[in-house]
Amino acid sequence: MSSSAAFAYSSASVASLPPSAEAIAAVTAALAAMLGNRLVTSLAVRQQHGHTLTWIPNQPPDAVVYPHSTEEVSEIVKLCSAHRVPVIAFGTGTSLEGHVNAPYGGVCVDMSQMKRILAVHGEDLDCVVEAGVTRKELNEHLRDQGLFFPIDPGADASIGGMAATRASGTNAVRYGTMKDNVLALTAVMADGSIVRTSTRARKTSAGYDLTRLLVGSEGTLGIITEITLKLHGIPEAISAGVCPFPSVQAACDATIVTIQSGLPVARIELLDDVMIRGVNIYSKLGLPETTMLFVEFHGSEAGVKEQAERFGEIAADCGGGPFDWATKAEDRSKLWQARHDAYWAARSLRPGAESVATDVCVPISRLAECVEETKRDIAESGLIAPIAGHVGDGNFHTQPLVDQADPDEMARCQGFIDRLVKRALAMGGTCTGEHGVGQKKIKYLEAEHGAPALAVMQTLKRALDPLNILNPGKILPM
Amino acid sequence: MSSSAAFAYSSASVASLPPSAEAIAAVTAALAAMLGNRLVTSLAVRQQHGHTLTWIPNQPPDAVVYPHSTEEVSEIVKLCSAHRVPVIAFGTGTSLEGHVNAPYGGVCVDMSQMKRILAVHGEDLDCVVEAGVTRKELNEHLRDQGLFFPIDPGADASIGGMAATRASGTNAVRYGTMKDNVLALTAVMADGSIVRTSTRARKTSAGYDLTRLLVGSEGTLGIITEITLKLHGIPEAISAGVCPFPSVQAACDATIVTIQSGLPVARIELLDDVMIRGVNIYSKLGLPETTMLFVEFHGSEAGVKEQAERFGEIAADCGGGPFDWATKAEDRSKLWQARHDAYWAARSLRPGAESVATDVCVPISRLAECVEETKRDIAESGLIAPIAGHVGDGNFHTQPLVDQADPDEMARCQGFIDRLVKRALAMGGTCTGEHGVGQKKIKYLEAEHGAPALAVMQTLKRALDPLNILNPGKILPM
Repeated sequence: MSSSAAFAYSSASVASLPPSAEAIAAVTAALAAMLGNRLVTSLAVRQQHGHTLTWIPNQPPDAVVYPHSTEEVSEIVKLCSAHRVPVIAFGTGTSLEGHVNAPYGGVCVDMSQMKRILAVHGEDLDCVVEAGVTRKELNEHLRDQGLFFPIDPGADASIGGMAATRASGTNAVRYGTMKDNVLALTAVMADGSIVRTSTRARKTSAGYDLTRLLVGSEGTLGIITEITLKLHGIPEAISAGVCPFPSVQAACDATIVTIQSGLPVARIELLDDVMIRGVNIYSKLGLPETTMLFVEFHGSEAGVKEQAERFGEIAADCGGGPFDWATKAEDRSKLWQARHDAYWAARSLRPGAESVATDVCVPISRLAECVEETKRDIAESGLIAPIAGHVGDGNFHTQPLVDQADPDEMARCQGFIDRLVKRALAMGGTCTGEHGVGQKKIKYLEAEHGAPALAVMQTLKRALDPLNILNPGKILPM
Repeated sequence: MSSSAAFAYSSASVASLPPSAEAIAAVTAALAAMLGNRLVTSLAVRQQHGHTLTWIPNQPPDAVVYPHSTEEVSEIVKLCSAHRVPVIAFGTGTSLEGHVNAPYGGVCVDMSQMKRILAVHGEDLDCVVEAGVTRKELNEHLRDQGLFFPIDPGADASIGGMAATRASGTNAVRYGTMKDNVLALTAVMADGSIVRTSTRARKTSAGYDLTRLLVGSEGTLGIITEITLKLHGIPEAISAGVCPFPSVQAACDATIVTIQSGLPVARIELLDDVMIRGVNIYSKLGLPETTMLFVEFHGSEAGVKEQAERFGEIAADCGGGPFDWATKAEDRSKLWQARHDAYWAARSLRPGAESVATDVCVPISRLAECVEETKRDIAESGLIAPIAGHVGDGNFHTQPLVDQADPDEMARCQGFIDRLVKRALAMGGTCTGEHGVGQKKIKYLEAEHGAPALAVMQTLKRALDPLNILNPGKILPM
């Protein structure tokens, strides 16, 4: 027995072609009149905006603009809509999968001059910022008030970009991702309308969750201009430490027990032996070159001490240790600086090589198996690829270091990434835990979500951006 | 200067008319062939499904079906789509704003026979359940494994219904709402397609967040059939207590300081003097009839003790106390049973009267002011309306007890609710923190979200349900 519905979702995309030279000329002239020298068309600036931390070739936009307000962004989008010219929102250019490149040309909207912190509500633990504010700028501003914003993707990304890619990072195990920490957004939609998605209330059931629809949409459904964020009080006490393990399995076991026992660990990061070698070189540390967990605890003085002691016991039970922990701010900073510099530390393992980002996330019960298989695959593929992972969430990155001029090596690297993603999906995981889809992950989406879910995503995109002017060529297959 | 985009979102809705008698007859005959005695058309059963805990008159569907699988739900939706017959998903019927009434008739899909717990993954702290499993059934099943599912809206609601209304309740201050605790969904969309929205990975940036689009969509975008939920380990220690305060302001001040200082309180509930009177009557307690906070702490033995002591200090600093706390399970159960019975306790204040639900949520800094103004408004309106609130989130409910046969009293009650919502919106809040929109909150959505956001919601609805067969007449204006 099988019936047919009266209609079916279509998986068709709206084709996007590079705009005509006439359209670009018309839009550029109008933008120059509107923005004066905040419209830039020099090749150098366009190329700066056409290539971020990615191994995709440069794809420059036709022009770059620097708006100062949501209303200006709205006018820019209306103009581009009228002329069918692509509009690409740009934060700090630290995305990793070709999110902000302009494969169809168009106008890059650089948000770096929208940097106002519009409000900080200490009693409500929230703030309202413009999209161009970076996470470090925000935390600098908040420090005096005893508040902080926890999401920490490593790079000093803009809050707008972090929302657009659903970013997370080392603190997500305790504080969640951007999905969990954005209360509301102001966004400019494809028709130029200015939408406020929610209020400052901590929770709501008032209709469709437009906030979460835009978070992670990578500028393809709307351009985020203002963000209302949850904040947290700076913990009374913080302690951090490092713990060596004899194997990835042992480190993952310790992670699982830590999470399962409800220990509210703020960070729990795995670095494999190869990555530790890079960290030792780059950050001049003398860590044992084996699998390590970097951990951090937030709480009261007594609470942090209790957490650290219990973690030490868990680590020992799993065959790891000794757990070396530090409550001094300088020691902690040095440790986490080294963790955050892992990207550069990895690159120091093969000077001159290009770095390729990967980003799978699996249920934590499968993590050890996934990492071990991946390490074997790296060895068999003849690649150098250190591993770092936000293991409390089951998320890890390998970072193959490749010579882009060597087609054989590039083919081996691509084959490795395809197998890595396939492995993660087979274990119930995702092709991207926190980097986003951009251009390079598009081909994995159907395998991850299935054709019906992908058709729903295409339906949403066609409904909200029928002319396909918002960051075309990203997230969804064209 | 103002440009015009090439298109604009329309706020038009798709009109829905009651289906023709022929369409109903055709669908009913086909469903009878498919489901046998799992199709019911008796008036008593239809009326049971046309009137839940709401003061909206009964609006029965034309038929009620009891599917056993996602595939059956898909066939039902395809059939209804082919004949343009409304489809209304039904959980336990504990929603409060007319969510499951059938104003346009159609087929009610009662999920109560989809009750399988499909998987519990202890190491990953997640599980997969069918939509008809209730939260108490799930927790009963999990208890032996040392796990629990924290979301607790009071009623023993179905997990599917809780996801559909973005429910929360007393534990949300610590564990979040359904938005935060659903990892993935299986849903049947308006074209009958079966969509799996995400994986079991703890986080992902792989495309649009279909999970959060469906959570809170009240059956208007898809019918949720399976849910993957985050779980938590049962805390090693739990303690709970009650604390009297001289005023709402003092209780709210204590709440703000508690949250701000990062005390990980699991529950913090305000009951006003009127509600306490009802609780004393209904639950045979002898609490002082003043504003009270009910609190609960989860953690290690030492952690819980530390939290309770600090809360006691904070309460005293704010003029409250003495804080009376209990670690014995029986005492805790009695206390929280009384809190959960507040709905019935309130009704005991005016036997025979109807109870009306309200559900605003404001930034916590405005909570005391909002509650105090609301209490004055209750007095001036000549209503009996006790107050209970999940004050850690800024969410509170007043519960006017009215004689529905008295038009003057009903008019006063409606006027009071309109002012309550307006007051919350003016303070940066929402018209519904956790109950959802259903039918009764539709009229407030434009004031809350603005016309552009409402047009986006209408655009999403038209795109995903172009025939408007999924729970028509709910959430969005027709």
